[in-house]
Amino acid sequence: MTSLTSSVFRTETMTVPGGTETIVRGGRDLFPLLPQALHGVRRIGVIGWGPQGRAQAQNLRDSLAGTDVTVSVGLRPGSSSAEDARQHGFAVGDWLEVAAASDLVILLIADAALAAEHEQIFAVLKPGATIGLSHGFLLGHLKAIGSDFPAGHPVIAVCPKGMGDSVRRLYLQGATINGAGINASIAVHADPDGHATDRALAWSIGLGSPYTFATTLRDEYLSDIVGERAILLGAVHGLVEALYRHFRLDGADPVTAYERSTEAVTGPIARTISTEGLAAVRAATGDQELFDRAYSAAYGPARDLVAEIYDEVADGTELRSVILADKRLATRPMTEIGGSPMWSQSAAVHARRETTEATIDPLTAGLFVATMMAQVDEFAERGHAWSEIVNESIIEAVDSLLPYMHARDVAYMVDNCSRTARLGTRRWGPRFQAAYEQIVLPGLEAPADPTLIKAFLDNPTHEALAAAAVLRPSVDISV
Amino acid sequence: MTSLTSSVFRTETMTVPGGTETIVRGGRDLFPLLPQALHGVRRIGVIGWGPQGRAQAQNLRDSLAGTDVTVSVGLRPGSSSAEDARQHGFAVGDWLEVAAASDLVILLIADAALAAEHEQIFAVLKPGATIGLSHGFLLGHLKAIGSDFPAGHPVIAVCPKGMGDSVRRLYLQGATINGAGINASIAVHADPDGHATDRALAWSIGLGSPYTFATTLRDEYLSDIVGERAILLGAVHGLVEALYRHFRLDGADPVTAYERSTEAVTGPIARTISTEGLAAVRAATGDQELFDRAYSAAYGPARDLVAEIYDEVADGTELRSVILADKRLATRPMTEIGGSPMWSQSAAVHARRETTEATIDPLTAGLFVATMMAQVDEFAERGHAWSEIVNESIIEAVDSLLPYMHARDVAYMVDNCSRTARLGTRRWGPRFQAAYEQIVLPGLEAPADPTLIKAFLDNPTHEALAAAAVLRPSVDISV
Repeated sequence: MTSLTSSVFRTETMTVPGGTETIVRGGRDLFPLLPQALHGVRRIGVIGWGPQGRAQAQNLRDSLAGTDVTVSVGLRPGSSSAEDARQHGFAVGDWLEVAAASDLVILLIADAALAAEHEQIFAVLKPGATIGLSHGFLLGHLKAIGSDFPAGHPVIAVCPKGMGDSVRRLYLQGATINGAGINASIAVHADPDGHATDRALAWSIGLGSPYTFATTLRDEYLSDIVGERAILLGAVHGLVEALYRHFRLDGADPVTAYERSTEAVTGPIARTISTEGLAAVRAATGDQELFDRAYSAAYGPARDLVAEIYDEVADGTELRSVILADKRLATRPMTEIGGSPMWSQSAAVHARRETTEATIDPLTAGLFVATMMAQVDEFAERGHAWSEIVNESIIEAVDSLLPYMHARDVAYMVDNCSRTARLGTRRWGPRFQAAYEQIVLPGLEAPADPTLIKAFLDNPTHEALAAAAVLRPSVDISV
Repeated sequence: MTSLTSSVFRTETMTVPGGTETIVRGGRDLFPLLPQALHGVRRIGVIGWGPQGRAQAQNLRDSLAGTDVTVSVGLRPGSSSAEDARQHGFAVGDWLEVAAASDLVILLIADAALAAEHEQIFAVLKPGATIGLSHGFLLGHLKAIGSDFPAGHPVIAVCPKGMGDSVRRLYLQGATINGAGINASIAVHADPDGHATDRALAWSIGLGSPYTFATTLRDEYLSDIVGERAILLGAVHGLVEALYRHFRLDGADPVTAYERSTEAVTGPIARTISTEGLAAVRAATGDQELFDRAYSAAYGPARDLVAEIYDEVADGTELRSVILADKRLATRPMTEIGGSPMWSQSAAVHARRETTEATIDPLTAGLFVATMMAQVDEFAERGHAWSEIVNESIIEAVDSLLPYMHARDVAYMVDNCSRTARLGTRRWGPRFQAAYEQIVLPGLEAPADPTLIKAFLDNPTHEALAAAAVLRPSVDISV
């Protein structure tokens, strides 16, 4: 179900290509409504203290301050995070005890732990307690093993479209700038008592989401896992690896090659899309002809890869691979990928930012925008809601992940994201790199394809992105 | 079962690390025994006319000339191969009719066709007709869909350790040089009448195999699919993509970069391993110190990847991916990867062969041999027979595939192998490239790991390879 009705919050209608979507606008003025919307939830147990756990536990506690709703943190015995959670002022308990005592149990442990331990947690839940997730991984896993969520429990998901750190930092900015925060989708997977949607909206608004849109757990899972393997991370990594070497072989010095590839993507390209939209990048390159050739060469191969990723995620093979990898990691720890020659240039490039004007390389821009559009079009073809498409393909990229990579670098991001994302990036990043190197760049000499360019310029995503932008807070992400 | 007993052919004992294996030596002098060993098989139906179908149908027909055993070719209605099969002198029939009329039905259609059509073929088989395969793909597929081979039929596999073209060309050389041919493994998966092993041996000897060793269909499947994704093709492609750019960025001109990477692997490294063994490559580099550092840097990351591939093939995820890809190909045809800048140097490099002495670059050699040993060690750890290990990891590489790539080039091979191999190479080649670029090459400065080098020099595979080499025909492959 992707409709959205609430007995507590005012829904709004957002015009999107081909129709409308119902959304709920957030804001601190709505916090007094949270206890009512939570419908009987008085104890919230956040299980896990990773980036999402830390951010969500704090945001919910702050949003619910002065009410009778409490937020506790549950951790595994001996967890090294317990001290940090206590220092942040939380009552920390054994995860199963906290789960057993809570009316809303928000499961924010790592995917592999969730796969291994969900049965233990399900077994201790209070009758009718709400199961809360922040993405659809567990649904995919339960499906893969022929299992299901326990009957009689509401199952909801609130999925912030950004990293945990951003969820907390933008929330804090929201104290002075109303509406600052990260958009979130909600999914109501099981609703035995009829209040699941309100609870999900309360949770989302309590996290500080500027706007909340509806999806299904399955659509969320697909777009989330595919997105991080494609334009949100995997494709970015593959793209800059390919382009850095391309520019170097073309005679550029290391700093220039870095600036034309990574720096262009994480800096001015992301910023231009964020503030002016996708088509503006084309104009900003100063070489529309090259942009169009690059776009034309890249769109097809990128679309092929996004379709392949989508098939594998939908089929469950990607998830099986993650679980297999997780088993191997016990004896073969994951190596880091930060050794690529490019990353040794990060410091020098970052130091030049104050004195060097950021420019958009037209080749880099053409390849990046084509890949982003490939994901947009694939998601649209597979029937995702437009809010989900633009958030998972564009907004999360240009307003959350790319600015984070701009502050650190791409390799840091790859080596420090969630394990599922990290494994996915290692699987698919090299595929994008190879496609750019072996198919796209050698095809650059061909003239631009006017049909592809017209499809880009007329793409309904521009309208959807503009509709979402109206709801965008007036602050940039703090990284 | 990997023991081997025959009521017709003489078995021999080959000493391998940790014990012995039973093998059967081939030779044209054994052809008069084939009808007896086929135990009631008078009509052989070869279904399919790809490289393996074409080679095996011709070899079997020639080996059985003058006997009452006939070989027919069965093709799908409207097959574009029918004319070629007829020009090669075969009676060509509808595939289901040929399958229905044959006592031994050898299924050599493409994997995807086998996955889609095996039920139709099984349905028309004569009672007790033998089902013949040339690799274990179908077993993996049947397992994946919860199905099985039909009861009451012998199920055997004869798996030549080389491409179809080589199977035919070396067979023809065998007319004057007894023993020339491609080694094969056999697997007896079902043996309701007790004659399955003899039939498999007759088929293998009829193909011209210098020696035949026993495996199981599952082990064959695993080693075959993993091998082509790793050292037989995928890793080679990834390696030369990474090294070509590495040498270019290090200042080498394109021809030199090609010679130090691709040319070294497909030429002198393969030739040295083939004739003198693995350890000889180290000495031949002229820079043992660099070889050792390269080997030490590459072994771990390569082993991680081979283990990952093995897990995915064993789990069935790799096969599911191939089947998903096959469905996509209906609307998204596979692009070719020959556009990498390196391949435009092939002609220039090949032209220099007559005047330039082939040299073994120590860096290239260290990375290649480490990757080969990673596969050997992983297969040994997973319990494969030594004949299978050395054939699937070393002999097939240096005596069949690399010489083929040397004559054409790597990209030609990638774009023209079986669809399962082609898809696998595209999936895993870029993973090897990324591992070499991001982990191995940046780690070159570290000193060599004496434990790894000792494990290489003392590795039992040298003994197994020497035992297999005794049975090696005295001819090089014709490409």
